[in-house]
Amino acid sequence: MKHQNFKLTLAYRGEDFYGWQRQDPHPTVQLALETALKQIFGKPFHVAGSGRTDRGVHAIGQVASVQLPPTHSSVVLLRALNFHLPPGVRVVSVHPAKSKFHARFSARGKTYLYRIVNAPFLHPMEIGRAWHVPRPLDLKAVRQAARLFVGKHDFASFTSNPGYERDSTVRRLRAIRITRKSGSVLEITFDGDGFLYRMVRNLVGALIKVGHGRLSVADLKKVLSARSRSTAPPTAPAEGLYLLKVRY
Amino acid sequence: MKHQNFKLTLAYRGEDFYGWQRQDPHPTVQLALETALKQIFGKPFHVAGSGRTDRGVHAIGQVASVQLPPTHSSVVLLRALNFHLPPGVRVVSVHPAKSKFHARFSARGKTYLYRIVNAPFLHPMEIGRAWHVPRPLDLKAVRQAARLFVGKHDFASFTSNPGYERDSTVRRLRAIRITRKSGSVLEITFDGDGFLYRMVRNLVGALIKVGHGRLSVADLKKVLSARSRSTAPPTAPAEGLYLLKVRY
Repeated sequence: MKHQNFKLTLAYRGEDFYGWQRQDPHPTVQLALETALKQIFGKPFHVAGSGRTDRGVHAIGQVASVQLPPTHSSVVLLRALNFHLPPGVRVVSVHPAKSKFHARFSARGKTYLYRIVNAPFLHPMEIGRAWHVPRPLDLKAVRQAARLFVGKHDFASFTSNPGYERDSTVRRLRAIRITRKSGSVLEITFDGDGFLYRMVRNLVGALIKVGHGRLSVADLKKVLSARSRSTAPPTAPAEGLYLLKVRY
Repeated sequence: MKHQNFKLTLAYRGEDFYGWQRQDPHPTVQLALETALKQIFGKPFHVAGSGRTDRGVHAIGQVASVQLPPTHSSVVLLRALNFHLPPGVRVVSVHPAKSKFHARFSARGKTYLYRIVNAPFLHPMEIGRAWHVPRPLDLKAVRQAARLFVGKHDFASFTSNPGYERDSTVRRLRAIRITRKSGSVLEITFDGDGFLYRMVRNLVGALIKVGHGRLSVADLKKVLSARSRSTAPPTAPAEGLYLLKVRY
């Protein structure tokens, strides 16, 4: 029986999982999905994600692809998956895809959101949903620093594990948007063709250092050209990061 | 040394507490506050809340009053309390109050918000923050039903524990606002001079029954006039309820 390729769009809550990728017996999103599929079809299937998300990172629109027997429609699959999955992950949509479609290799870009609460205290409803940065930020400096990153650059200074990258550490950031919302919430959106391992969290760590005046925009420029993680500011925590969207 | 009366405004996350009122050794908001004050002043103080909130109910603007030695300013108290309190509760503001001010007896009204996710599945980021109502709702019927409750009524059918009420079960609801937000979120705001025990959750349970066509507006009118809880629909869950504001 010829299999049908499916594109799944997923939302999950970071704190419920040890990230995307299987590390049995830890709860991961991939394990949850593959377990649900095994319960539905009675045999195992491999699910490919658009990329790994780290432990604690949230997803609003993660994408996965999987080849399945054509016995169930998209609508039935959606319901069956959500029935078997734990509540911390939901399948938002299921669509049949061309046989060549692959969640990771077909991806042409991604959008990440990083949420910061910039206030003396963290509102209890924001626990686990944002990075709490108590000291005031110089937003003008943050925006100026962000402009450094837009465009095509070698981001070797902003990957936590350079050995993990197969070839180039050059990536193109299409846009960074910085919005101050009510309640002292700062939202930073990163739109890029591709991202290195922990790149967004490392960029955010650097932006906040600039916002606190502990790193000048000129110094940050040097960090970027150094192409070495050792010179770069620390990584922002996982709980502020959301994978919003994968572009195909 | 003459004590100074303080008005504290608090936010807390329902799932972290067994409600407002002390039931030692369970974690309650009152216990957390009184423990923090004991750590600050080295001796115990009694904190009065504007009213109890049940286990699992959130607060954005709960109010408490407490008589304290005038040794610390409001600013210092705010910081010291948030330093000693667990992250699930934050003191949002501290203000000196007249000696007669009492969080409960001076209250002239309250505003509650009830959040519902009316979609086939519950988004993982909404776990614990809304009531998941999968079946579609007839919003027109819900609005019509809500109008029944506005004004001065005997709400005996909508209190879970009539014996708990000292005297009258008559309360005045000033307004009910129903707003459909993006992402299938339904927000219902209740503005009233006073509320009976579990009244908002019981009203919401009834509104949803009407929205599902399992109770007509005419039947609901009969439930209201019956003045008996036994005739009324079930209580909506605690996780959708937020104490927004106390009016003085």
